[in-house]
Amino acid sequence: MNVITRLMKPQRVAVIGASADISKTAGRPVSYLLKHGFTGEIYPVNPKASEICGLPCYPDIASLPEVPDVGIVLLGAERAHQAVAELAKMGCSAAIVLASGYTEVGEDGARRQAELIKAAGSMRILGPNTIGLVNITDGIVLSASGALEMDHFPSGAVSLVSQSGGILGSLLSRAAARGIGLSKLVSTSNEVDLELSDFIDWLIEDDATKVIALYVESVRNTEKFRQAALRAAAAGKPIIAFKIGRSEAGAKAAISHTGALAGADRMYDALFKQVGIIRANSFDELLDIPAALSTGRKLGGNRVAILTSTGGAGTLVSDALGVSGFATPAPDEMTAGELRALQNGDHAALDRNPIDVTLAGLKPDLLKGAISSLLRSPTYDALVVIVGASGLAMPELMSNAINSCLGSTDKPVIAYISPHAPKIGALLTQGGVPAFSAPESCSAALGAMLHASQWKAPTQSDRPTTSVALDTIPTGALDEAQAKQLFSRFGIPCVNEIVVSSAEQARQAAVKLGSRVVLKILSSEILHKSDMGGVAVNLNAEQIGDGLEKMKVTVKANAGITPEKFLVQEMVSGGTELILGMHRDPLGTAILLGMGGVTAELLKDTAMRLLPSAGGLAPETARQMAMELKTWPLLDGYRGRAPADIDALVAAIVSFSEMVARLGEQLLEAEINPLFVLERGQGVKAADGIAVFNSEAGTT
Amino acid sequence: MNVITRLMKPQRVAVIGASADISKTAGRPVSYLLKHGFTGEIYPVNPKASEICGLPCYPDIASLPEVPDVGIVLLGAERAHQAVAELAKMGCSAAIVLASGYTEVGEDGARRQAELIKAAGSMRILGPNTIGLVNITDGIVLSASGALEMDHFPSGAVSLVSQSGGILGSLLSRAAARGIGLSKLVSTSNEVDLELSDFIDWLIEDDATKVIALYVESVRNTEKFRQAALRAAAAGKPIIAFKIGRSEAGAKAAISHTGALAGADRMYDALFKQVGIIRANSFDELLDIPAALSTGRKLGGNRVAILTSTGGAGTLVSDALGVSGFATPAPDEMTAGELRALQNGDHAALDRNPIDVTLAGLKPDLLKGAISSLLRSPTYDALVVIVGASGLAMPELMSNAINSCLGSTDKPVIAYISPHAPKIGALLTQGGVPAFSAPESCSAALGAMLHASQWKAPTQSDRPTTSVALDTIPTGALDEAQAKQLFSRFGIPCVNEIVVSSAEQARQAAVKLGSRVVLKILSSEILHKSDMGGVAVNLNAEQIGDGLEKMKVTVKANAGITPEKFLVQEMVSGGTELILGMHRDPLGTAILLGMGGVTAELLKDTAMRLLPSAGGLAPETARQMAMELKTWPLLDGYRGRAPADIDALVAAIVSFSEMVARLGEQLLEAEINPLFVLERGQGVKAADGIAVFNSEAGTT
Repeated sequence: MNVITRLMKPQRVAVIGASADISKTAGRPVSYLLKHGFTGEIYPVNPKASEICGLPCYPDIASLPEVPDVGIVLLGAERAHQAVAELAKMGCSAAIVLASGYTEVGEDGARRQAELIKAAGSMRILGPNTIGLVNITDGIVLSASGALEMDHFPSGAVSLVSQSGGILGSLLSRAAARGIGLSKLVSTSNEVDLELSDFIDWLIEDDATKVIALYVESVRNTEKFRQAALRAAAAGKPIIAFKIGRSEAGAKAAISHTGALAGADRMYDALFKQVGIIRANSFDELLDIPAALSTGRKLGGNRVAILTSTGGAGTLVSDALGVSGFATPAPDEMTAGELRALQNGDHAALDRNPIDVTLAGLKPDLLKGAISSLLRSPTYDALVVIVGASGLAMPELMSNAINSCLGSTDKPVIAYISPHAPKIGALLTQGGVPAFSAPESCSAALGAMLHASQWKAPTQSDRPTTSVALDTIPTGALDEAQAKQLFSRFGIPCVNEIVVSSAEQARQAAVKLGSRVVLKILSSEILHKSDMGGVAVNLNAEQIGDGLEKMKVTVKANAGITPEKFLVQEMVSGGTELILGMHRDPLGTAILLGMGGVTAELLKDTAMRLLPSAGGLAPETARQMAMELKTWPLLDGYRGRAPADIDALVAAIVSFSEMVARLGEQLLEAEINPLFVLERGQGVKAADGIAVFNSEAGTT
Repeated sequence: MNVITRLMKPQRVAVIGASADISKTAGRPVSYLLKHGFTGEIYPVNPKASEICGLPCYPDIASLPEVPDVGIVLLGAERAHQAVAELAKMGCSAAIVLASGYTEVGEDGARRQAELIKAAGSMRILGPNTIGLVNITDGIVLSASGALEMDHFPSGAVSLVSQSGGILGSLLSRAAARGIGLSKLVSTSNEVDLELSDFIDWLIEDDATKVIALYVESVRNTEKFRQAALRAAAAGKPIIAFKIGRSEAGAKAAISHTGALAGADRMYDALFKQVGIIRANSFDELLDIPAALSTGRKLGGNRVAILTSTGGAGTLVSDALGVSGFATPAPDEMTAGELRALQNGDHAALDRNPIDVTLAGLKPDLLKGAISSLLRSPTYDALVVIVGASGLAMPELMSNAINSCLGSTDKPVIAYISPHAPKIGALLTQGGVPAFSAPESCSAALGAMLHASQWKAPTQSDRPTTSVALDTIPTGALDEAQAKQLFSRFGIPCVNEIVVSSAEQARQAAVKLGSRVVLKILSSEILHKSDMGGVAVNLNAEQIGDGLEKMKVTVKANAGITPEKFLVQEMVSGGTELILGMHRDPLGTAILLGMGGVTAELLKDTAMRLLPSAGGLAPETARQMAMELKTWPLLDGYRGRAPADIDALVAAIVSFSEMVARLGEQLLEAEINPLFVLERGQGVKAADGIAVFNSEAGTT
């Protein structure tokens, strides 16, 4: 049996350090197990007690009558590793270590954490610093947290995995109050062993789980996480993640622009996007969205009917939906006729949406009729029912009326509760109509449903490692010409250019390269060559000799160094300037595409994707990056412009990503800036670039 | 006595159409008045009853023993105007008309609304289609709404004015549940007479009101609203507004770009910004922010201490604050020492913020000590106390401990409640520590406090109407040259240019204007002159004659019209291109400044301000507009660029705004595009422009 299955559904649980006093923290695990009806064996371990909650208590781990599936270790950080070692020795498959005082408190803690890992050997560890786990489906609570001091947990299809124990408790308590049904709750916390991805993998196979919600502080193994997330998506189990750490400065100082444009939080954004994870934009959304998705209903389009018995709230929800791109069309004639027949004599205007049926707030049958009619209508993909003050006097009657209409349709139905009325909201949610008290939650929930219905994993595979052969991988910073030679080698078209060191060589180069050329200094010492007077454009063969001599003088004056080498380049005219770069951080390596030019740079118009563990990006992914730019229309024939060579751009992005993958950790920075994208059929051209390698040679 | 004072604090209330059956809607007003302890006279009017709730009932309005201060009209829309006419005739000062069925239902309703206005004469009307008003401070409920079916309203310093009755009920119910104290609630709804601004004005003088919250569907009288809002700001009473209608298409088809860049919702944004109104970005913020501001505490800076007894939630709040620009510095040494002394023996790390004092979740005295220490610390401007699961067992004890620390400081203190725990949240809020259950609410609340503490009304006045004399105001669309002559007349520097109609004239013009010129067709028939081949740049006097002849042929071929007039313009080199335009919609006339160029246009980098009722914008306002552009650094010496002539830009914006004000309704559209902003000292130059006037002449 899978070790995580044993952890989630144990038959035998040892509680190391259990207390007979259930008012104490150490008294809780046994009492929680009993209270929620655990049917397996419980082995309390405590040398000072003979019985705990009516169960025989064992003086030490060695005395246990059988090998437990899981040991809950309640001892402090100073002693926990001893218990872990004993459990491991005995052959126990997993231990839950609740103690805090590890890496989260600094050096001493880090030492203790290392001890703990050593003690565990091949036994799996959940924690430390965890509040444990709760398997609501099977009534198994493996925790000592006061946050779980509830008599009843709402059972349902949402499983939560959190890197913070406190947050897990908070989510459980909030979900219970709202009638949101949960299945498995796990706090992975310090993750010395079992981590987010392990539980995602397990939950994919768990029949009771339909939706996985994650509270993420930091993904420790990106590739494992990516694979798990893609498997979840393929299995039709959406993942919703709330990620903290959004306000980190993140971007380190770097000579490329890519570093400043990337940033830790945007890396997570890219990762989540690539694997179909829905990012919760507020903490509330981490419950709102799973509540909606766990109904299993698919949203087929963006047309929403809003049925209300109170004017203001209907408009409020309609406005929030509109802001998020939903349409709220008026009822079709047939539906309007049905609604009119229902409320004979009422003067409500039925040519609009929100559909205001004032009396429906008081009459359950009328409400049922109106809901059924709207759900039948081909005009709508989903329905929002607004609950006003009038329904509060009889919450069960109203919620039953709404919930009873669900059988007739697969369309999503959600509710917005206008007054403070938690009871009817919880009843509706429990009955399959997720209820929200913020209009923005309605749009977030429906938006996520639409995303989940439409998201498809990329059909093209990421690229395998390119076969471009390299004798040696360079070291240190390349100069501009070397950088472009490297890019060319990986198939990225670059401007034609010739390295020269004299006026006469420059003249010959200009003749060879065409009517107009660019002259630049070539130096790995002088940065910001434009600012130093080291760039001249639009020169012809006649002018270039003088230009070179003048440039020598100017650069010497500005930078204190006389340049010895120069680059004569073909001049690119027209086209759109982009930036193509890479960015590395603990999460992985990303490829960044950005619109160039100073305006776009200030406005940070960029798209980013993480590289897969081996190889480059799929062409489909590269194309999506380009289309994600806010200034994408510039490449796509905006206002009569000639459409750009998107295919060539896609090929360049893919090649660049393959290069980055191929060069691996030795490549510290790489950026093409600008990359000119010419008119369709004319390709792209890298006009300048940076490549910085580790100064010590590595393996190729 | 002010008529609104009489409406809000009446001595004598007539209830027209009162029912003796308090389970009916018409039975509610008398019962609500009695239940909440109204101390004045209540006169029920109903020909079919002799007594209602123990009060004598009058058969008709004429029989009333005294003139009421306010009449609540419970009759339907068909009969309400008759009661209104009788009340007006008697000399009653105001009527509250609850009936719906007016403009909100279409033509018949509009007719009824006109009848109602006529019937009221000089008597003031609240409504129709209103739920009335509630004066919680004085225990006066003038409403028939079931949403007010509560025995107790939370009394406090927040007043709400809503254009939707249903929303007012929703807000009251939510505020009550959260312990947010309210003062006056008014639903203005159809606003045939009394409107938002009337109540803002009244609330400024109301001692019980410290904060005004508005639910806005549409501002009907912009200038009145603006004046009221500025008076409120001057009186130190912040206004928070939630505005719906954000998803309207808004921008009408227009030949200028300004129309597409403006849009109805952005007009409101501009208006709110100009008068210091804080815009609630979500519906919840409409209570969150007033709850925080009604404490009256001022936030002096952005440094926040977070005191927590549960790790995860502290980090969550810290992250939300960081995203909003708040700093969470570690405790200074003295404060850390004090905290250490408090929890002797605990190993909590006190060199960081959130400050995690695990035991404080259980020990009120320790909590009080830690709060006092943090509030004394010069390192912090505000404190967020995180309430975890551990405090839930004794909500009063914990909330009292927190609330009792308030006396020692003027700094803001707010609470974040991590588990679902409405009771302790309400206790804290009632006691002066506004409590929130979303981390984003904490940052929104503190952000609004910082805004309210820092906002200053413009110190410069808006401009009086300019004295530029105009013999006549033009009609119809001006051509480019005429448009620039108009702009020049109002003091906006334009490029030098000469209108020509032959090759020879063009040559002479080019000689006069300098070495390089631009040649354009001048036609009010041909739009998009670039696309038609009607623009040539960088010509000299030798080339221009041929250029003109060629242009004639090209334009004829493209547009089917042979151009007869041309414009020879000096060529502007360098500088930054901006757009300066105007936009009119029902809210008023706005001046829009946008960064030019195709990239900025796609990214919609613009700033907007509404014109005051007479005259133009203050220079300070114009400068703020420029600084608000995301690409402002382009004008401000970004990356070694020469700083632009901001003073000249400010002067041009002011002049343009004065021109728009001076020309009034006759001017339909005006736009300068591009406006070149040159280096400091070199001014600005309008290079192209549009001006469209009403085709019928108006008054000057």
